[in-house]
Amino acid sequence: MKQIKLFLTDVDGCLTDGGLYYSANGDELKRFCVYDGMGMALLQQAGVPCGIITSEKLPIVVNRARKLGLTYLYTGVGCKIEKAPCYRYVPATAEPVEQPTMTKREAVEQICKELGISMKEVCYVGDDVNDLDLLEAVGHPCCPPSARPEVLRVPGIHVTMTPGGQGAIRELTDEILAARTVTLP
Amino acid sequence: MKQIKLFLTDVDGCLTDGGLYYSANGDELKRFCVYDGMGMALLQQAGVPCGIITSEKLPIVVNRARKLGLTYLYTGVGCKIEKAPCYRYVPATAEPVEQPTMTKREAVEQICKELGISMKEVCYVGDDVNDLDLLEAVGHPCCPPSARPEVLRVPGIHVTMTPGGQGAIRELTDEILAARTVTLP
Amino acid sequence: MKQIKLFLTDVDGCLTDGGLYYSANGDELKRFCVYDGMGMALLQQAGVPCGIITSEKLPIVVNRARKLGLTYLYTGVGCKIEKAPCYRYVPATAEPVEQPTMTKREAVEQICKELGISMKEVCYVGDDVNDLDLLEAVGHPCCPPSARPEVLRVPGIHVTMTPGGQGAIRELTDEILAARTVTLP
Amino acid sequence: MKQIKLFLTDVDGCLTDGGLYYSANGDELKRFCVYDGMGMALLQQAGVPCGIITSEKLPIVVNRARKLGLTYLYTGVGCKIEKAPCYRYVPATAEPVEQPTMTKREAVEQICKELGISMKEVCYVGDDVNDLDLLEAVGHPCCPPSARPEVLRVPGIHVTMTPGGQGAIRELTDEILAARTVTLP
Repeated sequence: MKQIKLFLTDVDGCLTDGGLYYSANGDELKRFCVYDGMGMALLQQAGVPCGIITSEKLPIVVNRARKLGLTYLYTGVGCKIEKAPCYRYVPATAEPVEQPTMTKREAVEQICKELGISMKEVCYVGDDVNDLDLLEAVGHPCCPPSARPEVLRVPGIHVTMTPGGQGAIRELTDEILAARTVTLP
Repeated sequence: MKQIKLFLTDVDGCLTDGGLYYSANGDELKRFCVYDGMGMALLQQAGVPCGIITSEKLPIVVNRARKLGLTYLYTGVGCKIEKAPCYRYVPATAEPVEQPTMTKREAVEQICKELGISMKEVCYVGDDVNDLDLLEAVGHPCCPPSARPEVLRVPGIHVTMTPGGQGAIRELTDEILAARTVTLP
Repeated sequence: MKQIKLFLTDVDGCLTDGGLYYSANGDELKRFCVYDGMGMALLQQAGVPCGIITSEKLPIVVNRARKLGLTYLYTGVGCKIEKAPCYRYVPATAEPVEQPTMTKREAVEQICKELGISMKEVCYVGDDVNDLDLLEAVGHPCCPPSARPEVLRVPGIHVTMTPGGQGAIRELTDEILAARTVTLP
Repeated sequence: MKQIKLFLTDVDGCLTDGGLYYSANGDELKRFCVYDGMGMALLQQAGVPCGIITSEKLPIVVNRARKLGLTYLYTGVGCKIEKAPCYRYVPATAEPVEQPTMTKREAVEQICKELGISMKEVCYVGDDVNDLDLLEAVGHPCCPPSARPEVLRVPGIHVTMTPGGQGAIRELTDEILAARTVTLP
């Protein structure tokens, strides 16, 4: 955990409990958790940049990333349901920059190249089959307990005790911060 | 499970946890689950058409069906509360076509006739007394654990372990896909 | 249960789980349960009028009562927080008629007088201290398991197994219907 | 508990379950609990002023405080995520008055000075690291069971049995009222 230099997460099921609220007037909502937001803010203050990598394209995710001041945000990253256009927000508070279609793994490789770090120094939280490729490529793959069976079988996967949307991300950011604080001589 | 050629589900209590959100401004919301959406998308990719059969008439259901690219959608199908007009969307992304008033069972018989398949090859998920007639007619009746006692007593009913709105549908689509993959010689 | 001739319920905590959703744009939401709606509809079909007695004044409650076709609806009935104006909707689908300020008990006594029935033939579901006066006056007082300690101590109170907002009302309407069906000679 | 002369609480995680609902149209929602509202109303009727101290700036909190008629409301009180402007509403139903940037502890010290009471007579409910300074300063620090580990370790902290957003605040207001009622000679 001490070696983590970049913290990234999926949205639905990880930052939320997987619930998708549809309104009759055409609006959509997601439910985030205040503990996760504070966790990523504290981790960034300690020098570990945080971000979101998602196939979702709704402004919900952009608004949440802005509120938290996250460093990285990729939306519309390739999933199995549809061939979506992909956007990058750098920093997360700026306007979107259209990207060529890419997979979640390719998006993270792009960030690592820019930061000059290895995929082994990345912590990524994902929960469904469209996260498998990326989870198998990073050094610290994590998932919430509701993750699909295929994800739970990823070698070395760290399954949080806290459910997604109830503080799963905070559990991880707290552990990363604790590992950085306790330094044996 | 290998013989299932059509996967259909009710909405409230099956694709949701039965919650109906009413807003002071007159809006209504339902909470779906991201895992169910991915499940039906994967099942359709594997060649099993999916759809929704509901007495509900709100655009919520239409929007959800469109997002998932479902093949079949019937709304306003006869329930016990009111004599509702019935609409069919084929494919689910197109405009509604008004239908004569019909029961859920009649709607599914219409689809089977068009597909040239038997009611025995249909998997339907329902949870309340207005689903009984259809559940007793299909080959693979299923329900979430919150289903009403009358539904839980349907002969051969498959009760999911996962609650409605938390992945009950994904549990079933995963089992159907697994049964199709494992083919003994 | 066989003698119940009128079924009435409070809203927050009984028809809902007690959650009050406030939006930044000034909207408010409550979460109802599809099972409860079907239950009251079935009970009314069997000849037992149903209704809502609440201190709430939001249009949320009016919209829900209309969707279900409930026979009785009183809003703004006196509670301990504020001296609210009181409105009656008869039938629940019509426009509000302003009433003199009254307690929940007085509202139900008004209905009983009109129907020519006794308070002993009324089933009322309530969960907080502003329901105590009415719960102690009706023949069939009921509450969800989350009711306040003072309510749980009402003599003869029937505590549902199902939580409010997850089908507590349906549990009761099913029991009332079952008691009416099973008639010993 | 008998000595408590002021009851104050944080919002997210205490008056709510920590959930933050983001809408695609830019709206935000929080889920409060009807039991908590009644509890603070009853406590104020008994002569103990209640209020909210939060780093949040959304009108959600203002609307909730107004509905309940709370005596004190401070929004935008300094947290670790951003340097926020701070506002005070006295009484909670009036317009905001801009304040110099202050910590939660400084806000409560301001109220105590005006009321002529000691910090030892204050009950405060908080759940995250930005509440630590205030929790350690008041006589009756409380938190919900979901509070962060650092909060659970505050000396003398009272952890409610009821989760935040499901009546944690009501549990405390009921205990304060009960302690005031039972007066030994």
